Amino acid sequence: MVMQTDELMPALYLSEGLQFRDDHPIPSPEPNEALILVLLAGICNTDLELAQGYLNFKGIPGHEFVGLVKRSDGNENLVGRRVVGEININCNSCKNCDVAMPTHCPNRTTLGIRGKNGAFAKYLTLPVNNLHPLPPSISNEEAVFVEPLASACEITQKIHICPTDKVVVLGDGKLGLLCAQVLQLTGCHLTVVGHHEDSLAMMEKRGIETSTCPKIRGADVVVEATGKPSGLNAACQMVRPRGTIVLKSTYHNTVNIDLSQLVVNEINLVGSRCGPFPPAIRLLERKLVDVKSLIHDRYPLSSGANAFQKANEKGVLKILIEP
Amino acid sequence: MVMQTDELMPALYLSEGLQFRDDHPIPSPEPNEALILVLLAGICNTDLELAQGYLNFKGIPGHEFVGLVKRSDGNENLVGRRVVGEININCNSCKNCDVAMPTHCPNRTTLGIRGKNGAFAKYLTLPVNNLHPLPPSISNEEAVFVEPLASACEITQKIHICPTDKVVVLGDGKLGLLCAQVLQLTGCHLTVVGHHEDSLAMMEKRGIETSTCPKIRGADVVVEATGKPSGLNAACQMVRPRGTIVLKSTYHNTVNIDLSQLVVNEINLVGSRCGPFPPAIRLLERKLVDVKSLIHDRYPLSSGANAFQKANEKGVLKILIEP
Repeated sequence: MVMQTDELMPALYLSEGLQFRDDHPIPSPEPNEALILVLLAGICNTDLELAQGYLNFKGIPGHEFVGLVKRSDGNENLVGRRVVGEININCNSCKNCDVAMPTHCPNRTTLGIRGKNGAFAKYLTLPVNNLHPLPPSISNEEAVFVEPLASACEITQKIHICPTDKVVVLGDGKLGLLCAQVLQLTGCHLTVVGHHEDSLAMMEKRGIETSTCPKIRGADVVVEATGKPSGLNAACQMVRPRGTIVLKSTYHNTVNIDLSQLVVNEINLVGSRCGPFPPAIRLLERKLVDVKSLIHDRYPLSSGANAFQKANEKGVLKILIEP
Repeated sequence: MVMQTDELMPALYLSEGLQFRDDHPIPSPEPNEALILVLLAGICNTDLELAQGYLNFKGIPGHEFVGLVKRSDGNENLVGRRVVGEININCNSCKNCDVAMPTHCPNRTTLGIRGKNGAFAKYLTLPVNNLHPLPPSISNEEAVFVEPLASACEITQKIHICPTDKVVVLGDGKLGLLCAQVLQLTGCHLTVVGHHEDSLAMMEKRGIETSTCPKIRGADVVVEATGKPSGLNAACQMVRPRGTIVLKSTYHNTVNIDLSQLVVNEINLVGSRCGPFPPAIRLLERKLVDVKSLIHDRYPLSSGANAFQKANEKGVLKILIEP
């Protein structure tokens, strides 16, 4: 039997390497899922790690997206709406789901990361409960940043930043720049430490202090967003005794650290991952965060491999993919 | 000039190795310090680490003690009182001292650990402000545990243990057994994981659940008190997503860990060191904690090297030294 062409779609597929295919089956929504036409997707550092073998993911990567609901099982009002989507698909029946920790459901799949094909394709499916309709005032170019911006919002969701706190964001990559913009809104004394001229200039333009010199000491809070294993040791040097280090980076490999300094200085180390979408949408709607300046370039889906190559280059911020 | 013999005292001195000397000068109290006759001292794991080269300490080790005030500059009422003493000597004039974090004063010395001779000697000196007089109901054998018991109290000083929490103490050494007894008082569901029959039996006798099997999962709080670098990875396996790991162990060496699991599971890692003396004294006074069962043996000061050797043996709990 020959498949009809309208049941096939273009997609980037990760197996041994990353390949463009124009014959991937269009996914069929499960009960309570929606079929979404991807309008724009973003490459995240996690995607680059996946391409290096992190988590052994095989399938269509991509979890930052904005799309249009084409079909919806369970909520017909969503059809035709422009949406962003939370990436963890939880079971709704385990203990973690019961206690409102769906992002930690042990049975979860994760869009484009674990057990679920992602956004580097013409279509994707997600449960309707994961979707957030967008107001018209948020453009597609902004909306594609909702997922990483939510991850930045998870910092203030997890710890209390006092407006008098001395806060350092370590790393001037995509995530660091988003974290810095969210933290700036607390009124804290914020410094972004990095080494990319353009990124730091972007922060300075928004009134955020920057430094290329990692000699800062006595910070109340350090957000580790370098994406490099050496970041934690640098953060330990900068944070004050009894201060807090927020770990945002995930690394593919293990890291060698001096744990005694955490004990002797009584440091609080907080791991932080996915965050809440509604505040991220509100921040974009109120134009309190500038995400568009982070866009470096956009590529068609068929040039996905080139897009990944570019995203891997030093100093390159967000690369978008247009299906 | 020949020194008078009453200006000399016996002491254990750590330089290349640990040596007993009977000709160490008796320390002269600085302004606002007291001269204290050591009645009993305890060997801590930190002492064993120091003897292995940790922190490059040279001098008289020992920071767990009970003593008798012989002279006191600034508080004559203390003379003749039996006391325990906080081990960090802070400068009282830096920012950390200002904000009530004297144990994190960057100019501090630490009794028997850094820049200040310690308790494995006939006499020691400490600022009078560091001293806590003891009620008669606390014996010397109990009082010598105030310092490590205070360190156990630092756990509940730093984090909120809910009485419904599932808590694991990882490690059945001296510190683990003290932590467990303090945590038990919160009413939490507590399990001590270890592999020393006697230690675990001691916990069972006090109604604390024990396990030799590290297959526990989903703990709200895990206290890492194994003193072993592998302890943190084991704790990461046991703690639930968004749970808390309290790090009590200090290690001489760096540790190789998978930081991503802290980020993905959003673990809160809390370093914890010295704690408050008053609650430790109150717990002993009210007989809510059994410390005497932890005493394995006692040695005279002149057999200090043997005492250290014994303290280093597997399964041996507290070794006391009598000057």
